[in-house]
Amino acid sequence: MLKKIPKRLSPELVKTLMEMGHGDEILLADANYPAVTNNQRVLRTDGILMPELLTDILELLPLDTYSDYQAALMEVVPGDASVPNGRPPIWDKYESAIKNVFPNYQLKTIERQSFYKYSKDCFAIVQTGETALYGNLILKKGVVE
Amino acid sequence: MLKKIPKRLSPELVKTLMEMGHGDEILLADANYPAVTNNQRVLRTDGILMPELLTDILELLPLDTYSDYQAALMEVVPGDASVPNGRPPIWDKYESAIKNVFPNYQLKTIERQSFYKYSKDCFAIVQTGETALYGNLILKKGVVE
Amino acid sequence: MLKKIPKRLSPELVKTLMEMGHGDEILLADANYPAVTNNQRVLRTDGILMPELLTDILELLPLDTYSDYQAALMEVVPGDASVPNGRPPIWDKYESAIKNVFPNYQLKTIERQSFYKYSKDCFAIVQTGETALYGNLILKKGVVE
Amino acid sequence: MLKKIPKRLSPELVKTLMEMGHGDEILLADANYPAVTNNQRVLRTDGILMPELLTDILELLPLDTYSDYQAALMEVVPGDASVPNGRPPIWDKYESAIKNVFPNYQLKTIERQSFYKYSKDCFAIVQTGETALYGNLILKKGVVE
Amino acid sequence: MLKKIPKRLSPELVKTLMEMGHGDEILLADANYPAVTNNQRVLRTDGILMPELLTDILELLPLDTYSDYQAALMEVVPGDASVPNGRPPIWDKYESAIKNVFPNYQLKTIERQSFYKYSKDCFAIVQTGETALYGNLILKKGVVE
Amino acid sequence: MLKKIPKRLSPELVKTLMEMGHGDEILLADANYPAVTNNQRVLRTDGILMPELLTDILELLPLDTYSDYQAALMEVVPGDASVPNGRPPIWDKYESAIKNVFPNYQLKTIERQSFYKYSKDCFAIVQTGETALYGNLILKKGVVE
Amino acid sequence: MLKKIPKRLSPELVKTLMEMGHGDEILLADANYPAVTNNQRVLRTDGILMPELLTDILELLPLDTYSDYQAALMEVVPGDASVPNGRPPIWDKYESAIKNVFPNYQLKTIERQSFYKYSKDCFAIVQTGETALYGNLILKKGVVE
Amino acid sequence: MLKKIPKRLSPELVKTLMEMGHGDEILLADANYPAVTNNQRVLRTDGILMPELLTDILELLPLDTYSDYQAALMEVVPGDASVPNGRPPIWDKYESAIKNVFPNYQLKTIERQSFYKYSKDCFAIVQTGETALYGNLILKKGVVE
Amino acid sequence: MLKKIPKRLSPELVKTLMEMGHGDEILLADANYPAVTNNQRVLRTDGILMPELLTDILELLPLDTYSDYQAALMEVVPGDASVPNGRPPIWDKYESAIKNVFPNYQLKTIERQSFYKYSKDCFAIVQTGETALYGNLILKKGVVE
Amino acid sequence: MLKKIPKRLSPELVKTLMEMGHGDEILLADANYPAVTNNQRVLRTDGILMPELLTDILELLPLDTYSDYQAALMEVVPGDASVPNGRPPIWDKYESAIKNVFPNYQLKTIERQSFYKYSKDCFAIVQTGETALYGNLILKKGVVE
Repeated sequence: MLKKIPKRLSPELVKTLMEMGHGDEILLADANYPAVTNNQRVLRTDGILMPELLTDILELLPLDTYSDYQAALMEVVPGDASVPNGRPPIWDKYESAIKNVFPNYQLKTIERQSFYKYSKDCFAIVQTGETALYGNLILKKGVVE
Repeated sequence: MLKKIPKRLSPELVKTLMEMGHGDEILLADANYPAVTNNQRVLRTDGILMPELLTDILELLPLDTYSDYQAALMEVVPGDASVPNGRPPIWDKYESAIKNVFPNYQLKTIERQSFYKYSKDCFAIVQTGETALYGNLILKKGVVE
Repeated sequence: MLKKIPKRLSPELVKTLMEMGHGDEILLADANYPAVTNNQRVLRTDGILMPELLTDILELLPLDTYSDYQAALMEVVPGDASVPNGRPPIWDKYESAIKNVFPNYQLKTIERQSFYKYSKDCFAIVQTGETALYGNLILKKGVVE
Repeated sequence: MLKKIPKRLSPELVKTLMEMGHGDEILLADANYPAVTNNQRVLRTDGILMPELLTDILELLPLDTYSDYQAALMEVVPGDASVPNGRPPIWDKYESAIKNVFPNYQLKTIERQSFYKYSKDCFAIVQTGETALYGNLILKKGVVE
Repeated sequence: MLKKIPKRLSPELVKTLMEMGHGDEILLADANYPAVTNNQRVLRTDGILMPELLTDILELLPLDTYSDYQAALMEVVPGDASVPNGRPPIWDKYESAIKNVFPNYQLKTIERQSFYKYSKDCFAIVQTGETALYGNLILKKGVVE
Repeated sequence: MLKKIPKRLSPELVKTLMEMGHGDEILLADANYPAVTNNQRVLRTDGILMPELLTDILELLPLDTYSDYQAALMEVVPGDASVPNGRPPIWDKYESAIKNVFPNYQLKTIERQSFYKYSKDCFAIVQTGETALYGNLILKKGVVE
Repeated sequence: MLKKIPKRLSPELVKTLMEMGHGDEILLADANYPAVTNNQRVLRTDGILMPELLTDILELLPLDTYSDYQAALMEVVPGDASVPNGRPPIWDKYESAIKNVFPNYQLKTIERQSFYKYSKDCFAIVQTGETALYGNLILKKGVVE
Repeated sequence: MLKKIPKRLSPELVKTLMEMGHGDEILLADANYPAVTNNQRVLRTDGILMPELLTDILELLPLDTYSDYQAALMEVVPGDASVPNGRPPIWDKYESAIKNVFPNYQLKTIERQSFYKYSKDCFAIVQTGETALYGNLILKKGVVE
Repeated sequence: MLKKIPKRLSPELVKTLMEMGHGDEILLADANYPAVTNNQRVLRTDGILMPELLTDILELLPLDTYSDYQAALMEVVPGDASVPNGRPPIWDKYESAIKNVFPNYQLKTIERQSFYKYSKDCFAIVQTGETALYGNLILKKGVVE
Repeated sequence: MLKKIPKRLSPELVKTLMEMGHGDEILLADANYPAVTNNQRVLRTDGILMPELLTDILELLPLDTYSDYQAALMEVVPGDASVPNGRPPIWDKYESAIKNVFPNYQLKTIERQSFYKYSKDCFAIVQTGETALYGNLILKKGVVE
């Protein structure tokens, strides 16, 4: 642990976030995501939930001001009855956390099968302990001036 | 994640607990413990607190019935003003968790400098996110029949 | 060994099952299967028969409720005289074990040459000690809630 | 698998037995033995019981005719109530298996704490699935002429 | 060395033969074969001649009864004057060794350039000390029942 | 780079500082220090001078409040003419940087040959680009609450 | 450090420059460049600015006299308001440093997206501490006679 | 060093030459050749000139009698003024050294850009200290009878 | 294979012999020798007998002219009935092979238990296929002028 | 190769010299020196003679001005007839090369057996192609200001 660095972030995770460059993307995946299958670099944070982890990461990670989106979500499968109103409740927490640091943020959504393929090109996947439905979130790193 | 295995436990941690044998000891260390200095095998669980982790581990790990102690704590430094009454409050939670699975448990305490040396011979050190004072705890594995 | 985890499962195998995500598949292969040729990750359980291993694994591994199949078998080669009635006897044991944990299971079969190729994309192959004909079985992991 | 080689023996185990030389010793340990703590080379055979494994190994491994013992056991702790008559029942099976291949065999026993230290110098430890009491057995390799 | 295992076979070679599955093929190559160029797994047996090695391997390795060939040879280049009658003398020894364990064997031959490419897909290449012309031989592994 | 983390600190260095625990010490060595000879873990920051690096590190690294010293210096060799008044000028910058974050700091000095040996037990050595005389500085990590 | 070799250059960087051959190219990237994503070999020089590093490297590295360019820059995105007059100020320093060692130098510019792909084929990427806009520079190595 | 083996040849180089098979090719490259870029296996012999190295290698390495060339050179770029008469002087030394061991040798030349690609398929590249123009030479290994 | 290098010697073995320096010793061990237990560097030559291997090695390896012995043998255990006349017959072949290259050679013998310890300090152990009694031989490398 | 760096020095050697610190010593050993036995880090420069290599290294490596010796030699064995006048001729070349860069140099000599032990603590050993008697030379690195 160090001063200024949120305690939930491991040394390996901070190192990974530091090594990312402008435009690199990182997937914060839920606990059931097939992470090892879709990326060479997988960091586990078993037992840690997404909203807390997201808030901590956003204390350090700048989002991309040059891009037309700052984060990406997995699109709800049309007709999925488990998601009332077609909007996963956890997304509110995500948007709130992002808005705090980037008021004019834009999100994009990616169709489920495409999302898996998309995650193969991410810089890394963080496998969290989150079990909420549609809990996966991709962040696009910006520039530190 | 798998059925029956508590979600906070990572694959690497479960593998480590499985590889331990009768009499092997594991240190659940607090977030400030010099873990890398004192053991070759360090597993990190940043952000996870000890009472929850302990409860989860004890769902799987049997304690040693053949030994005259099942767990060990770091002795309070004589005259340490930060510990009123000479007893760290977090120990209550530890004892409660252990008692649930091993009613007749015995604890031993180890003087601080000796504790560091002792931990060099542990099977592994788990560096948790706990920041309570005197939060380190050693568990001695028993037999699975 | 640990409490709650079946004794036949090695630390490495449990770790592998834990690292699999939703939709990942694992092949439990017979003792003659060309495993190394078809996958980078091969775990051996020499001397262990499939029905016992399958039962143990299903104590921990959830099957996929979102998929239209939970397991896959190698299709019997048309006209194979070694399989009377065209149905390998060991499949009864597999179906019985699966039914215990997933009553409405669906199986799919895959033609022999396609099966070999299919296994290249599995998360891992477990090379068991089973020598029964057509003894290979693929399991599709589901979600832990 | 190969002709002439018992099916329960893994490729890694056969390779290890082949690499041992005259006088090298191997510990077949029970499922609770602290194997990783006591040896650099640990091979696991989870789920395999000792009597079957021993019989298979002795089909291949010659015992030492030059030594005054061919195998070693862990001495029963004096007064251990769990071992009626002071003789672990599983030893009968061991002696029977050894006698089949080496009629004039000699056994030695080693006091429990000394046994742990002794196993550090073994060529390797095989961690079996045996859970019988006092189930550990050391074999001393002989010469192939 | 071990009982029942021919002395010329190294621990690494036996392990490799054991890891091969049904249908996997292994090339026993002559001393001049470009082995490293054509396969990731190369085992050397410098100084050992093919007929002896072949006989030893066939004591352990079952040939494939399901395939329409059990072994393959490099086709003699049309018009090669170094091979009188168009048949390399060493092939007699190969056929004799194979016939001993598989009376109804079938051989196939592969054109020279195709043979090099073919060997890239073999499980492994054993680089022997054989210097006879057209001394390369591929064996196809069968099933151990 | 990340927000809040000084730009001169590499990902590897931040990871190292995070992995240190309470009481672990790190040597910031000058450019001529025999670092590789005295420690397994050496991080290079060629071209970076000590005062700037020290200030950056102290933004993140807490110093030890429990110890009777927070930093250590290499004692000036008695009679060294290159150090007028027996006090290396760069020490003023060090003390100033430390005082900013830890007003009641205590320094200790270590005799030159002892200093080399002492540095073998440090958690790591950072080889900086500093060429000032007696520029080596050891920091003792404290607790993050 | 050694005589004749500029102090800012690390051992690893000098080794890399030495291993490059005629025509190989190296990217000196700014602090926000996605380096790890675009090359297997990444060397970090956190805190070091480009003009100084460039001058140091050009003391050792000969530029290519056979090529029609000696260095390459990332083309300014058309209409980028952050670059007044369409010419990044830091380029003057680069041209000045190059001119010192290669008076008749030629530069080429590469469109931004193409530049990322182009950097995948570089011999290595040096991630510097430079934060000036359009600060990336590729050098093409020449011949040492 | 050993008897019969020329002293300039390193253990690694002799091992590499021994592992090459019939038809494998090795590039002896000049000191400016982009070796690491064009081959996975690079051996360096800094300070050693080609004619001496070539003579030494040909004491051990047989050239290919079955091929229609025994060695290959990089074609002189048409109109290259640095090569008077269009023939690099060092080629005389190469031909003389080859003629000594293979009187009826044939050379082939390869156009410059094709040569770089060609070298990617060589068994290895030896980066020598030669700085003569067009000093690269490829040798094709023959059979040892 | 290469010209001048005996065919029975593997690339790895020749490399090892080349890396040895003046005074380094290598053990050519029989097939039952506990090689892995006594040395980190073990090379296997299964199926190769000592007299042939020794002759081949002595074509390349110079023996030490500065030492008072050139080779060492394991002393016959006093009273060993398996060795008539107290002299192992295979020693004649060894002495004959050594005499051919070093007429005034001197041998030393080492008591059996001391021999095992002695072999821990050898440069390497070659595990041959020799099964003759007392077949182990240590060679001391000399100088190549 | 790079400008200013002597061509005989390999990238690995330059990197090693750069990593050495004040007081670290490097052994330039003759071709028969038992280098691998006496140091973990061995760099080979087969075919390169000591006087040339020494001159090249001294262009880069500063010698230690703080020490009472800058280089060390292996003492001539008393009565060694191969060294007329008790002084190896090659030492003249060494002293001349050192004098060029360090006029007031001091040499020390170390008895032969002590020299071997001494070399175990060197930073590295460079195994050169030198075959002159008593050709070993140790250099002590100084400070780069």
